Amino acid sequence: MSYAASADDLRKDALSSFKPISAAVTEIRGAPTSAAQIDLGRKLFFDSRLSGSQALSCNSCHNIGGGGSDAGPTSIGHGWQRGPRRAPSVLNSIFNTVQFWDGRAAGLKAQAKGPMENPIEMNATAANVLAVLKSMPEYVAAFRAAFPGVADPVEATLITPGSPFDRFLEGDDAALSAQQKAGLRLFMDKGCSACHNRINLGGNGYFPFGVVEKPGADILPQGDRGRFAVTKTATDEYVFRVAPLRNVALRSPYFHSGKVWNLDQAVTVMSTAQLGTELSPEEIVDVTAFLQSLTGEQPKVEYPLLPPRTKDTPLPQ
Amino acid sequence: MSYAASADDLRKDALSSFKPISAAVTEIRGAPTSAAQIDLGRKLFFDSRLSGSQALSCNSCHNIGGGGSDAGPTSIGHGWQRGPRRAPSVLNSIFNTVQFWDGRAAGLKAQAKGPMENPIEMNATAANVLAVLKSMPEYVAAFRAAFPGVADPVEATLITPGSPFDRFLEGDDAALSAQQKAGLRLFMDKGCSACHNRINLGGNGYFPFGVVEKPGADILPQGDRGRFAVTKTATDEYVFRVAPLRNVALRSPYFHSGKVWNLDQAVTVMSTAQLGTELSPEEIVDVTAFLQSLTGEQPKVEYPLLPPRTKDTPLPQ
Repeated sequence: MSYAASADDLRKDALSSFKPISAAVTEIRGAPTSAAQIDLGRKLFFDSRLSGSQALSCNSCHNIGGGGSDAGPTSIGHGWQRGPRRAPSVLNSIFNTVQFWDGRAAGLKAQAKGPMENPIEMNATAANVLAVLKSMPEYVAAFRAAFPGVADPVEATLITPGSPFDRFLEGDDAALSAQQKAGLRLFMDKGCSACHNRINLGGNGYFPFGVVEKPGADILPQGDRGRFAVTKTATDEYVFRVAPLRNVALRSPYFHSGKVWNLDQAVTVMSTAQLGTELSPEEIVDVTAFLQSLTGEQPKVEYPLLPPRTKDTPLPQ
Repeated sequence: MSYAASADDLRKDALSSFKPISAAVTEIRGAPTSAAQIDLGRKLFFDSRLSGSQALSCNSCHNIGGGGSDAGPTSIGHGWQRGPRRAPSVLNSIFNTVQFWDGRAAGLKAQAKGPMENPIEMNATAANVLAVLKSMPEYVAAFRAAFPGVADPVEATLITPGSPFDRFLEGDDAALSAQQKAGLRLFMDKGCSACHNRINLGGNGYFPFGVVEKPGADILPQGDRGRFAVTKTATDEYVFRVAPLRNVALRSPYFHSGKVWNLDQAVTVMSTAQLGTELSPEEIVDVTAFLQSLTGEQPKVEYPLLPPRTKDTPLPQ
């Protein structure tokens, strides 16, 4: 693979598959977001009192400081139970058209309830969450402020614009190294971008893990049949959401099983399982170098001050 | 108790027992702190990979957004084990002269190792923590930058100046309500400030829980004999560090056992157990109102971006 390909040609090809993240996202699926909504969301995201034990928050498994996921392999939830699948990143999840590894929730709103009520995740009940929130006047006021009807649009916060790849797509030839350009070319020519495409390089469709060759049971545990659990359709066995690849270098380990700890290993597994073409060792290095260019500017999040409990706040269970 | 006491007299009396927090604390026990040190400390504080499971960080139990402690009653640690004592607040801990409920560590430096290596808290080994830190070039560089010899002094971050009580001590009569002033007067006259004094209103000495009358086993469990475990001295049975009271309204539940959920209840328990004078219901309300004035400006902490793991980073256990 030559490193001398014209940047313009490469960009043109890339723009037919991908889209840069603009720094200004002021609406979520058509609805404008307000500062009050983002402020409330930030509090809720970090508040462990929304879990049954009151010890686990969204951020426990979707760590804002760790690329939006946790240390893995899969998350530790209520009672120290380990979940079956790796926690997907919350960063840029606004751009995914499907949520969860099996797409069992349509949008971000629909997915938020699942982990809170899951007995091996946050183990809360809707009634308890409501009682916790209603017990604190600051939350009652924050909900009122967040949903008064009309909103002043502000930017969504958990997106990561400005990656070298975005800057390249936007016209800066020097944003990618020659090796990363070679990796991008391979990524498109070898077929990776057939699934990992659009603004999040994934997150918008389903494919079997093992289009060509099923990985071993260490990486693809037999018990987890993926989207089959949602659709009960035979062709959906071992079908999973295409993982979005933005910031992928920040959030090892990889795959729904969280069993692959290094990015170059993950690229190797993918090339065998999905493409049927084994990439050469140099090609693996080039693609891995390209994937490093997907690390954007991470959100600056001020740790929220949470409302103090009142006499009415339910106790931890 | 009259609400009309002269603010000047009250302030003069208060200043003989207490000290306001100045917004500028630029050294820790005589050693100036640098921006690089604070930045490194912030990363370490939020990095769950310093625990054996890589799922628990300092912030898991000492929540910056929750007054520096957790939802209680006591903390959930490794393997979902619950610790025997309530997590003390990290806020303003720089001003405490003793650390832990039983003073078993002399300073903040000496105490930091304990919870990391405790098998029911973070369950790490020193060797593993070292291996985790050394595996990430960003940490190696951050340690070098933090300890190069000379430091540019900057402000310590986890302090909470500007509480109504501080503003009152500094001369602003209107910073406390008449009720809070009455509460402060009671706090001094009834003997609370004999132990809860100086800059942190506590944190600087040891007293038996139950000077006058031992609380019930629900609040003072028999199995935990406090400082006796450190000194093996009979007179240290059920002796604990005097709890620092700053931001106390933010961090229910109370006492080393974490079994009292409301502040007025805690004041009632203290009045019976420590003073031998039962406060009247109005006096309880006044003292509780005064304790609300100890809530300072909470630190604005940007959630740190943690270095990504490398091939050399130990896996979670």
